[in-house]
Amino acid sequence: MSVVRRNPPRVAPELAVQFQPYGVATIHEAQGRKGLLQSHMRPIWPRARAVGTAVTVSIPPADNWMFHVAVEVCRPGDILVVAPTSPSDAGYFGELLACSLAARGVVGLVTETGCRDVAALHEMGFPVWSRAVSAQGTVKETLGSVNVPITIAGQYVEPGDLIVADDDGVVVVKRLDAEAVLKASAVREAKENATRARLRDGELGLDIYGMREALAKKGLRYEDADA
Amino acid sequence: MSVVRRNPPRVAPELAVQFQPYGVATIHEAQGRKGLLQSHMRPIWPRARAVGTAVTVSIPPADNWMFHVAVEVCRPGDILVVAPTSPSDAGYFGELLACSLAARGVVGLVTETGCRDVAALHEMGFPVWSRAVSAQGTVKETLGSVNVPITIAGQYVEPGDLIVADDDGVVVVKRLDAEAVLKASAVREAKENATRARLRDGELGLDIYGMREALAKKGLRYEDADA
Amino acid sequence: MSVVRRNPPRVAPELAVQFQPYGVATIHEAQGRKGLLQSHMRPIWPRARAVGTAVTVSIPPADNWMFHVAVEVCRPGDILVVAPTSPSDAGYFGELLACSLAARGVVGLVTETGCRDVAALHEMGFPVWSRAVSAQGTVKETLGSVNVPITIAGQYVEPGDLIVADDDGVVVVKRLDAEAVLKASAVREAKENATRARLRDGELGLDIYGMREALAKKGLRYEDADA
Amino acid sequence: MSVVRRNPPRVAPELAVQFQPYGVATIHEAQGRKGLLQSHMRPIWPRARAVGTAVTVSIPPADNWMFHVAVEVCRPGDILVVAPTSPSDAGYFGELLACSLAARGVVGLVTETGCRDVAALHEMGFPVWSRAVSAQGTVKETLGSVNVPITIAGQYVEPGDLIVADDDGVVVVKRLDAEAVLKASAVREAKENATRARLRDGELGLDIYGMREALAKKGLRYEDADA
Amino acid sequence: MSVVRRNPPRVAPELAVQFQPYGVATIHEAQGRKGLLQSHMRPIWPRARAVGTAVTVSIPPADNWMFHVAVEVCRPGDILVVAPTSPSDAGYFGELLACSLAARGVVGLVTETGCRDVAALHEMGFPVWSRAVSAQGTVKETLGSVNVPITIAGQYVEPGDLIVADDDGVVVVKRLDAEAVLKASAVREAKENATRARLRDGELGLDIYGMREALAKKGLRYEDADA
Amino acid sequence: MSVVRRNPPRVAPELAVQFQPYGVATIHEAQGRKGLLQSHMRPIWPRARAVGTAVTVSIPPADNWMFHVAVEVCRPGDILVVAPTSPSDAGYFGELLACSLAARGVVGLVTETGCRDVAALHEMGFPVWSRAVSAQGTVKETLGSVNVPITIAGQYVEPGDLIVADDDGVVVVKRLDAEAVLKASAVREAKENATRARLRDGELGLDIYGMREALAKKGLRYEDADA
Repeated sequence: MSVVRRNPPRVAPELAVQFQPYGVATIHEAQGRKGLLQSHMRPIWPRARAVGTAVTVSIPPADNWMFHVAVEVCRPGDILVVAPTSPSDAGYFGELLACSLAARGVVGLVTETGCRDVAALHEMGFPVWSRAVSAQGTVKETLGSVNVPITIAGQYVEPGDLIVADDDGVVVVKRLDAEAVLKASAVREAKENATRARLRDGELGLDIYGMREALAKKGLRYEDADA
Repeated sequence: MSVVRRNPPRVAPELAVQFQPYGVATIHEAQGRKGLLQSHMRPIWPRARAVGTAVTVSIPPADNWMFHVAVEVCRPGDILVVAPTSPSDAGYFGELLACSLAARGVVGLVTETGCRDVAALHEMGFPVWSRAVSAQGTVKETLGSVNVPITIAGQYVEPGDLIVADDDGVVVVKRLDAEAVLKASAVREAKENATRARLRDGELGLDIYGMREALAKKGLRYEDADA
Repeated sequence: MSVVRRNPPRVAPELAVQFQPYGVATIHEAQGRKGLLQSHMRPIWPRARAVGTAVTVSIPPADNWMFHVAVEVCRPGDILVVAPTSPSDAGYFGELLACSLAARGVVGLVTETGCRDVAALHEMGFPVWSRAVSAQGTVKETLGSVNVPITIAGQYVEPGDLIVADDDGVVVVKRLDAEAVLKASAVREAKENATRARLRDGELGLDIYGMREALAKKGLRYEDADA
Repeated sequence: MSVVRRNPPRVAPELAVQFQPYGVATIHEAQGRKGLLQSHMRPIWPRARAVGTAVTVSIPPADNWMFHVAVEVCRPGDILVVAPTSPSDAGYFGELLACSLAARGVVGLVTETGCRDVAALHEMGFPVWSRAVSAQGTVKETLGSVNVPITIAGQYVEPGDLIVADDDGVVVVKRLDAEAVLKASAVREAKENATRARLRDGELGLDIYGMREALAKKGLRYEDADA
Repeated sequence: MSVVRRNPPRVAPELAVQFQPYGVATIHEAQGRKGLLQSHMRPIWPRARAVGTAVTVSIPPADNWMFHVAVEVCRPGDILVVAPTSPSDAGYFGELLACSLAARGVVGLVTETGCRDVAALHEMGFPVWSRAVSAQGTVKETLGSVNVPITIAGQYVEPGDLIVADDDGVVVVKRLDAEAVLKASAVREAKENATRARLRDGELGLDIYGMREALAKKGLRYEDADA
Repeated sequence: MSVVRRNPPRVAPELAVQFQPYGVATIHEAQGRKGLLQSHMRPIWPRARAVGTAVTVSIPPADNWMFHVAVEVCRPGDILVVAPTSPSDAGYFGELLACSLAARGVVGLVTETGCRDVAALHEMGFPVWSRAVSAQGTVKETLGSVNVPITIAGQYVEPGDLIVADDDGVVVVKRLDAEAVLKASAVREAKENATRARLRDGELGLDIYGMREALAKKGLRYEDADA
């Protein structure tokens, strides 16, 4: 039942890197509002940001043995994406594992568990998104799997999918959608830049987006408050 | 049922501005410990602070159409205060809307929903208090109302009320109470300054506040621990 | 029923101070993974850190009278550890009490309640771990006890126990275990330093910890993904 | 600051009683989807149901003194509606107070606190909606107010408003709206009865409500799955 | 983007029905401990139980339009499985929709939203598993999809998968695994029956499962307490 | 580190049995409002009730091996009290273990984990208080300890302490306090019986408890609402 799959197909690193300019919110919109992990997945230090290809790990509760197994099959540009088979806030991950991942070119960790050594991870600039911070240790007794499809924080992630994470949360882009989503992100960003300029000049969204007629049709009524 | 009220009476801007020196905790105490929003309303970046007059918005779940409507009726010095009619953590609000609000002189947002673009909002210094951070987009299908009384995070807020928000949370001062609360805040602050000096010098609260007799009367007993 | 115990035996200050180099995660591991408070106890400002001897306070819900009583029996190097008898997120503690504690050489506060004046506490560098931030005031009507055993965030704490708190949370070391735990922490730290160097050089945990055989025995299977 | 208001105007008992046939969901819809308390307010025993006029109580955290005060000003047909000024799950209310309320003709309790004596309350048929069950006792030290406007579980309730509560939750009908809401409830119920019969016969909502065209216009596409 | 797929392949009704004797816990174990939905999915009335084939619905927040669409494509023996694209506790589902589903032979509903009309649903014996009970109504403005893969409460569900739900929660059995899992469930049940008899007779699990040696090897130590 | 202590001193069975008439709320009050477990510990079926002496178990997350060990050292009249060393909602306990415990005369289970087989446990009348219901299985890999002091749901419990649990929650009575608490419970119950009769007759708590003067002294003001 426990398996480690080596070298799954993944979004090409030279494609992945082009997502660097775009935020989670932009990408989520650009791909039709799917793929966003639930909002309890938060960065452990502010302004963290990572773009990488998913190495997925299905892991037992409070047991981090498979982290060590996963390190070996990571390739530069990967991001580790870890989900426990039963909920656990234990501190599966800390600075030592981060050193090991960083040495292999892994760019971050997204884990629906706890993590620890927050101060050290911040100092070394290794970004982590987790559901909790906890110093609680784990055991190394039970197997899990690496590079199998997992469900994490409400999303289905397959190995090789693209992961983008920042202050707003974490989004997954399916491997085969990456190219299209990249283009759509660029289009959206350009459009937002144009809109931003107009809004800063004091133009109203009501006018820019032409909402007035639709609002009136729905029955929106204006009245003056009497002081 | 959906209405936008223009120009409701509000706390005078020149009165509102005088609340700048006082923190949420001080004002909450000064007005007799009322008006504090529930503690799940947190600033999205540290050291955020805002003082303004409420433009209230009652909004459908996961639908941010009324934000655009509300912008137009905001006046300089206002703060947007937004409550959904059914709970939603969706990301109603982001950087573009903040640009639009800032262009009109709006000083901040208090929303019992999610918000997104945290990094950009921090950079531009636009303060937001929300119950969640989420990149999840919203639709523009259903009307709500602007400048009607709302209930948000356990408090009843009417348009034109004064809102003060900082690292400790958010407090609402009723429009007609503002002048009295300002005076009481100044009195309280002065008193605390005097007390602070004595405490720093090592004097005890027990003595400054004269608590020893009351404690003894209630039956407080001292004993030495035997090592 | 309400009692204040003076001068309970405590971990010697010159012993306590030697825990300064070690993090919560290290100490928790070194003492056999016990004593960790639940993960909802978080620092109110980042990078906070404190090492001290516990002055325990059992306190009524939303009533902070006993804080004032506790101040007087604190000795330099102490840390206040406070648990309510019924859950409360009220803001029991703020800057004035911090001034008073700091004046007596108290090094921090761990409280399973709310606290307030976050900005001021950060500025003065007084570290607090709490379950909530809230400006909600408290009354001074009901007694509690100081320096009695308490249960806080899942741990049993006796006066004089050692408390270490940092970004990862809070751990309690029983008074009589302190010397042994200090030694074990040093051993662990040294071992981790050696491992860290090897991991940074790209060696794998699988090899350093000799896990391959055990994994194979449990039935871990490797396979190549077919692209 | 603490006041007990006697004999506030209330929905007439002979009007209130006519709401008996209608459920919370029906009434909530009939009045335009407002007035519903948040979903954490749950009945402490299944199939509980109550219709009454609100006697409101604003109460300190973990202090139930004002319950005793409130009993005296209750009239037959009233329902007690209680909100703490700071969150508390303590067991403010139990069987003895229920005996006292029942003796005065009070029909139930809605409290955003804990309650206790669940088994006894079920046996005597006294319905309670609360946010928690807890045996934790409270003190009698601090005043509150009776029959002042309160905010509870996200709703603003004034004394004399109508409260309907059942397995689905709790809804408040503003005093002056009661007559109109009663009529709208009857209309809605009748309409639902007609629809129910058709649905039971296998007719589809798509046809009964005429949704097909609107769905098609929005772009809904049907396709056959290939087995 | 919005699509309704008709007649997806599903677990054969005559196979599905054979799961009737087995509980969620047994099936979850029998298929190697996968497929269990998170524990916040609870039956709205006690002793509810359902076995059926999934008709999946991906639905917008607080908008139940697609329920009506889904009814039409349901076949006898199906169970509706509904996940919102953004979290919502609104009351999407009530008695009228249940009448419609029951008329088509649908055996239950699993929804990661709120539902309402609990009393009526209990009376008519229509079982529902949901994350909340709420009378809050929904709109009919935005499309979703029917019979597409969804993620719900931590599990990935495809149309036609088998769903078993009871007091212990909800488990999904992948369509192609159903036959094997059925056999494994029968084996497990038989084995448990044998064990149950021995345990009732006072035999110990330590002996039945032969655990004593393994425990001793791990270092378990027995000692007599001194009274 | 892992130990099983046999035959710790416990509250005498003939003393324990005398607590049968008293509810959790009464006993909690009678012993000075201490020993109540947090309110998330709920019975898995309504009207459950148990009185017994604690066999404590400290157990690893998602690993129920020690349950089997604990069974052997249980004596008739005991109740199992189980706390994980790291939070876990997994389904540690089900019907088979209940059969085994019942065969040894164990009267119930209090566990800060999940449990499963709710329907079967209800049918056989075995009472359980837990923090969750979950069918999620556990492993048998890691040791824990039996009959050592534990902290559970905010209380410190030692083996042999008395546990009383009912619909209102769970309370622990320290072993050496049991006799005194029994007497105090009887006194309290008698007093409540007398009060209950007077309240049912319509007398007010305000008069029975003589509260009017104290309320007036605190400044409570009555006023008539003007209709």
